[in-house]
Amino acid sequence: MSKIANTPKPPYYVVIFTSKKVDENREYREMSHKMVELVSKQDGFLGFESAKEELGITVSYWRDEASIKKWRANLKHKEAQKLGREVWYQKYKIRIAKVERDYEF
Amino acid sequence: MSKIANTPKPPYYVVIFTSKKVDENREYREMSHKMVELVSKQDGFLGFESAKEELGITVSYWRDEASIKKWRANLKHKEAQKLGREVWYQKYKIRIAKVERDYEF
Repeated sequence: MSKIANTPKPPYYVVIFTSKKVDENREYREMSHKMVELVSKQDGFLGFESAKEELGITVSYWRDEASIKKWRANLKHKEAQKLGREVWYQKYKIRIAKVERDYEF
Repeated sequence: MSKIANTPKPPYYVVIFTSKKVDENREYREMSHKMVELVSKQDGFLGFESAKEELGITVSYWRDEASIKKWRANLKHKEAQKLGREVWYQKYKIRIAKVERDYEF
């Protein structure tokens, strides 16, 4: 993703997903692409930003906690999570936070 | 930065800095290096994570809002912010959020 997400006025929620990958193969990229398509259609999804070097950081923005919980429980997403833990990620950390203010230049 | 930050049990604060850079020269890298050194010494600083592709994402973690405000007002940091706006960044967005929960694998 190459754009700064165009989020509404706070408050809203953010999920910060930081990961160390073992490997990045075609299967991973296909799943990643599918998840981007799927997450974009979720109710309450506001946008996301992503960058990867040694560390991968994906930041997704959400209207509220309920929509984050629904996305976490989504069946196709759960399959991806399982593969992530079993195959792709060496380690990851997820933080859920409430955006209180923002400013830009 | 190549490690997932080892943050304490929530609640704590996070600053999400997303940027589009115009250019990345030696001067930028030196300033960036200096700021990493400086921020690491700030009271209330808990760690940070960073990755850059088309978009740069830097996520820093803080004990409370007061320590974020002090860092924002730090004179050397203010110089860097000014150069950032005048020279390096095409656009950036800063979001301040309160981490409510986290989990990891």
